[in-house]
Amino acid sequence: MVSNENIKYINYNELKTFCSELFKSEGIPSEEAEIIADNLVQANLRGVDSHGVSRMPIYMKRLKLGLVNPVCKTKIEKKSVSTAVINGCNSMGAVVGYKAMNYAINEAKEKGIFFVAVNNSNHFGTAAFYAMMALEHNMIGFSTSNAPSSMAPWGGYKPFFGTNPFSFAIPADKRAPIVIDMATSVVARGKIILALKNNKKIPEGWAINKEGEVTTDPREALEGSVLPFAGPKGYSIALLIDVLCGILSGAVYGPHINSLYDNFEEPQNIGHCFAAIDISKLIDPAEFKNKVDKMIEEIKSSPKAKHVEEIYLPGEIEFNTQKERIEKGIPLTIPVIKELKYLGKSYNVNTDLFE
Amino acid sequence: MVSNENIKYINYNELKTFCSELFKSEGIPSEEAEIIADNLVQANLRGVDSHGVSRMPIYMKRLKLGLVNPVCKTKIEKKSVSTAVINGCNSMGAVVGYKAMNYAINEAKEKGIFFVAVNNSNHFGTAAFYAMMALEHNMIGFSTSNAPSSMAPWGGYKPFFGTNPFSFAIPADKRAPIVIDMATSVVARGKIILALKNNKKIPEGWAINKEGEVTTDPREALEGSVLPFAGPKGYSIALLIDVLCGILSGAVYGPHINSLYDNFEEPQNIGHCFAAIDISKLIDPAEFKNKVDKMIEEIKSSPKAKHVEEIYLPGEIEFNTQKERIEKGIPLTIPVIKELKYLGKSYNVNTDLFE
Repeated sequence: MVSNENIKYINYNELKTFCSELFKSEGIPSEEAEIIADNLVQANLRGVDSHGVSRMPIYMKRLKLGLVNPVCKTKIEKKSVSTAVINGCNSMGAVVGYKAMNYAINEAKEKGIFFVAVNNSNHFGTAAFYAMMALEHNMIGFSTSNAPSSMAPWGGYKPFFGTNPFSFAIPADKRAPIVIDMATSVVARGKIILALKNNKKIPEGWAINKEGEVTTDPREALEGSVLPFAGPKGYSIALLIDVLCGILSGAVYGPHINSLYDNFEEPQNIGHCFAAIDISKLIDPAEFKNKVDKMIEEIKSSPKAKHVEEIYLPGEIEFNTQKERIEKGIPLTIPVIKELKYLGKSYNVNTDLFE
Repeated sequence: MVSNENIKYINYNELKTFCSELFKSEGIPSEEAEIIADNLVQANLRGVDSHGVSRMPIYMKRLKLGLVNPVCKTKIEKKSVSTAVINGCNSMGAVVGYKAMNYAINEAKEKGIFFVAVNNSNHFGTAAFYAMMALEHNMIGFSTSNAPSSMAPWGGYKPFFGTNPFSFAIPADKRAPIVIDMATSVVARGKIILALKNNKKIPEGWAINKEGEVTTDPREALEGSVLPFAGPKGYSIALLIDVLCGILSGAVYGPHINSLYDNFEEPQNIGHCFAAIDISKLIDPAEFKNKVDKMIEEIKSSPKAKHVEEIYLPGEIEFNTQKERIEKGIPLTIPVIKELKYLGKSYNVNTDLFE
């Protein structure tokens, strides 16, 4: 944990406006700037700081270098009754994802399920952002993305797969929805990037260095390989995601994806997949949501192992954190704030929220 | 590993006929008996002995007790453009699954993707059996099932979820297809059952006893809880599968599913889900399969970590085992053979294949 001296609490709405203004300075239309800012700040609100506003510097740098199209143009390349391939036209990942997920949701209303594969996109933030869009439509949402190489195949040590994350969101009735969002590595690479940014060591078991040995140095870890969760199981899921996002979509996979951080010459050509299932096509949504509530209650009241105070549902901790951070503000570390202030000054965007 | 003195190699075709004959003796129609026998023997061929013919005694017992309908009647309860709910009408899981997956495949030819949720079914064997059915149609196959409680929620010790397995199958061109099949526990409960049957200890980390302590005794483990893989991640996926198979389908979930082994009064009411994606609706299947081949070759030639002789793709070891066992026969342990011979004698089915 970060000590209180090294953090400041920032109002989430002001933070969103600040990010949005920065994006607009790089030619992103207002509505799209808000989507990306919302995507990043939502990650911070939910406690997923590795995918929050600490990404602003790299997003802005790639926009400035013209590596990402500021105005989102997407193109439907192929369509069947219940599937589509969408070309992201090298626009901002968060906007491409938002549009593609909305498309899946709208089509699922008619078809029951709809699956979208996206090529030629960019880093899209947290997967949960898209899966959760399905919730208000009484749908189960799914999203996944590939990412640049950082994880070796099981038995190897040279990065091949990204930490390819995926998310499922399941609506409940009175309880908070169930939101599953995980990287296929032991931890998201973003957590190692954040550790480096905050000068912290990483726990053993997260990553190996480029010689294939376990390391606790985030810099060495980023040069080496993060480890898949559950060994061959995490490896298998990362591979599946790369087949869906990197081959089925017409994008590229693993080692052929350009780095967000190290390649300032070419676009990333990342692929995503999104799906929505309209619950009403299978079961009465009220019955479904009641049963999910009942399941949640049964899990919460399951007898606890020693030293465990509470059993949590996937996404529950994030919802609690969100409630708290909406009230108290988002705790940002000084190094992150420094970078944001620097950006603000460079683009003449008001940085008073950080004072 | 089991020593050579304790095993006999049995021809897979003869074994299939033997199982099929047994099923027919309990009133299962010939064609359906062959599907179930194929399902079990395929598991043995692929080296997944926990899901193979060692299940014959319990399958036969439940049939004999009238807990499962020998003649498979399924009913489409609800249908939308690209989804269906199928009532398995308490028939044999392997036949219900076979029919439901075929339904998904046929519909996906028109729709691009098709999703089937099944209720009122029974133990369906390995998930890979169904996902792999999609391969010859140039489709990506998906299958999953819930199962009786054996795994506590993360932070608890009382079994709630099954070891809910899932499988994805991805066609390749010249290379073997990629077949992912995993339980959401560290290991399949079937491996613990097999350990018990063969009087073996289980490794630490597989399970906890009913007091919540780590155990290496398969009997204690079966009374306690198996552990999810990767802690909260495996727990999240098991939960997701139970929502899909146990709530969305209209079946029941976790603690409400009746045991295969301990409840001889009621049907199981297990739920499954199946999906097929027609690759041609998204990308030229030849291009897709070539790229999968290329990806496989890149992974296979990735530099190996110390002490690693070969990097394997998911399903590759199973394909190698299958090739070997088709030739050499399926190695069955003496305790398993003893049970099969007992069954053969009880039903007047020829047991010469075991001599």
